[in-house]
Amino acid sequence: MNVTVRGRSRAHRTVTFDSGQNEVLLIEQRLLPHEFKIVATRNFRETAAAIQNMIVRGAGAIGATAAYGLAQGARAFRGSNLPKFSAQLDLVQHTLASARPTAVDPVNALIKIRTAMDTGETVAEQQSIALAAAEEFANEDASHCAGIGRHGANLIRDNMRILTHCNAGWLAFVDIGSATAPLYAAQAAGRKFHVYCDETRPRSQGATLTAWELAQQKIPHQIIADNAAGHLMQRGEIDLVIVGSDRVLGRTGEVANKIGTYTKAVLAKRHKIPFYVAIPLSTLDWNLKRGLDIPIEDRHESEVLGAWGVTKSGKREFVRVANPTSGVRNPGFDVTPAELITGIITPAGIFKPTELWKKRKQLGHGG
Amino acid sequence: MNVTVRGRSRAHRTVTFDSGQNEVLLIEQRLLPHEFKIVATRNFRETAAAIQNMIVRGAGAIGATAAYGLAQGARAFRGSNLPKFSAQLDLVQHTLASARPTAVDPVNALIKIRTAMDTGETVAEQQSIALAAAEEFANEDASHCAGIGRHGANLIRDNMRILTHCNAGWLAFVDIGSATAPLYAAQAAGRKFHVYCDETRPRSQGATLTAWELAQQKIPHQIIADNAAGHLMQRGEIDLVIVGSDRVLGRTGEVANKIGTYTKAVLAKRHKIPFYVAIPLSTLDWNLKRGLDIPIEDRHESEVLGAWGVTKSGKREFVRVANPTSGVRNPGFDVTPAELITGIITPAGIFKPTELWKKRKQLGHGG
Repeated sequence: MNVTVRGRSRAHRTVTFDSGQNEVLLIEQRLLPHEFKIVATRNFRETAAAIQNMIVRGAGAIGATAAYGLAQGARAFRGSNLPKFSAQLDLVQHTLASARPTAVDPVNALIKIRTAMDTGETVAEQQSIALAAAEEFANEDASHCAGIGRHGANLIRDNMRILTHCNAGWLAFVDIGSATAPLYAAQAAGRKFHVYCDETRPRSQGATLTAWELAQQKIPHQIIADNAAGHLMQRGEIDLVIVGSDRVLGRTGEVANKIGTYTKAVLAKRHKIPFYVAIPLSTLDWNLKRGLDIPIEDRHESEVLGAWGVTKSGKREFVRVANPTSGVRNPGFDVTPAELITGIITPAGIFKPTELWKKRKQLGHGG
Repeated sequence: MNVTVRGRSRAHRTVTFDSGQNEVLLIEQRLLPHEFKIVATRNFRETAAAIQNMIVRGAGAIGATAAYGLAQGARAFRGSNLPKFSAQLDLVQHTLASARPTAVDPVNALIKIRTAMDTGETVAEQQSIALAAAEEFANEDASHCAGIGRHGANLIRDNMRILTHCNAGWLAFVDIGSATAPLYAAQAAGRKFHVYCDETRPRSQGATLTAWELAQQKIPHQIIADNAAGHLMQRGEIDLVIVGSDRVLGRTGEVANKIGTYTKAVLAKRHKIPFYVAIPLSTLDWNLKRGLDIPIEDRHESEVLGAWGVTKSGKREFVRVANPTSGVRNPGFDVTPAELITGIITPAGIFKPTELWKKRKQLGHGG
């Protein structure tokens, strides 16, 4: 999507590859919205570190970063000894897969690239296939998001006021995003609308990442405290809610997403406001039988006790806001039941959450 | 309530008066929870400035501060010329009443003190009455809060997990508080319970003031992001909600309170969790006919764009968190309808929100 640097707007992807330098190019997301900077990782270890340190985050984005990292590691190999090459690839794959131990996207991406490489008969062939497969993986991620946008844009009419929570934007994918895809597609179709970004405490991804994305893309928007959405709904000032998800249960239609999503769904239901969840097919979990079994990560108390930001003198600092002798409870995610969800927007169309299982073949479930 | 300074726990009031020095003594609330400091204002102008600069805030607390400020101004007068004294009092009263133009409590407190002073026949008599009346006003504020506590404590049983929002604690009154009064009374009765403090963005009064109060009072508690309460309710981890209010409509039972209160009431209703509002009788508005007519203040965008806190080096600083080119919508309050409220806890007992009008004589309404 668009990024304006020194007054000039350019198209950017979250993750790209410089084949001449054999480097993965990443937007340094930890500096946003205060600074826009591209980081180049020079070898697979640096690429794994970038995933681990959250220079890049978001399911699609870290999947593509791992895919490029594997191609990078393969292309750095000198020689034609296939067994030695293969041993090197195992190391590269293991290093990249371990960078975020709970994330499934890098693991799946790495398996996909290695499976493709198996069709090559020489080191040189496999190196070339690795890069082509990584490029294909990244392009597919972007094209899945474009598909979400095509279907989701139909929900957006002129003058709508749309609420979103957290960041399920292009920074979380290779491009376009999931929850933001319908917004970008509707904008391209010439529709005029207004977006409210939930701040999304404690990590403020709405105020930092989503707001930055929408500003770059020149979509009219305002940031609100997480406390404000209920009041705006009550006053008739929100027409539609679109959020992303970390996991959607194909069997029940339950949606795990950033803490606070459930609250917004309850409020939307009370006010009869349509509530949509936008996801690529890779977010569907066909195994788990109930949302209560989705593990909810309890995150570090420092997130709630204060905030990261930039001081008047331009220095990036953490300030402690809360009473230091108080404890914290900090669940990172919540689970929204199907009854509160109007529809699931996917690259294959929009589905009621309760019909996912019936439509599972159409949604790419092999079983 | 209790404050521990250098390891020693002492009883404190939010507002007191040093008659020897003719000074109003205030807890400097802007420094909490990072520093506990008592500020002495030396004349009525300094007292008005302390209200204006929010060294002291909260309905009961600024009412008592204005009352003491009038006594302070009266006692600083030298001479026995009653007309001159009266002109001086007009200036003092006007200065104190103008410090927070939208607040009604200081205005009412000042009228109360001046009416009492009218019974004195000399300057000296009136000066003496002024101080006695201010002391009585402060004691009454504390005693009303104690009454809220006596009634509200009956709702709290052992092992309950209680949610509160914003700060309606003793720092907002002379002592004890409104929403916190049932907690302190239940603690005094030996009951064991756990409190969740909503952080209460954008100004974080829950994380700073309420959490500090509960820590000083040694009540077990944890701070949560405003996004987390819905998840905790869904998992059966909240048994009771108690909040304060800025205005309760006697005719409809609607409750205006800090932004986010309505959201918590909607969630509590869904999960069949009792939702109570604790107020002194002065918070009842017998005139307004519908909540929609309560003016909702739109506050400054800087509150949402960042946070005040303390850096690692101990400096109090504002950090900008959000994308700077994004706009903000920042309503300061919301209105909760009667159907979501289990009861209104007052010094005169606990009432259903819809029966306030019928019981208006018992609740101190003259009409």
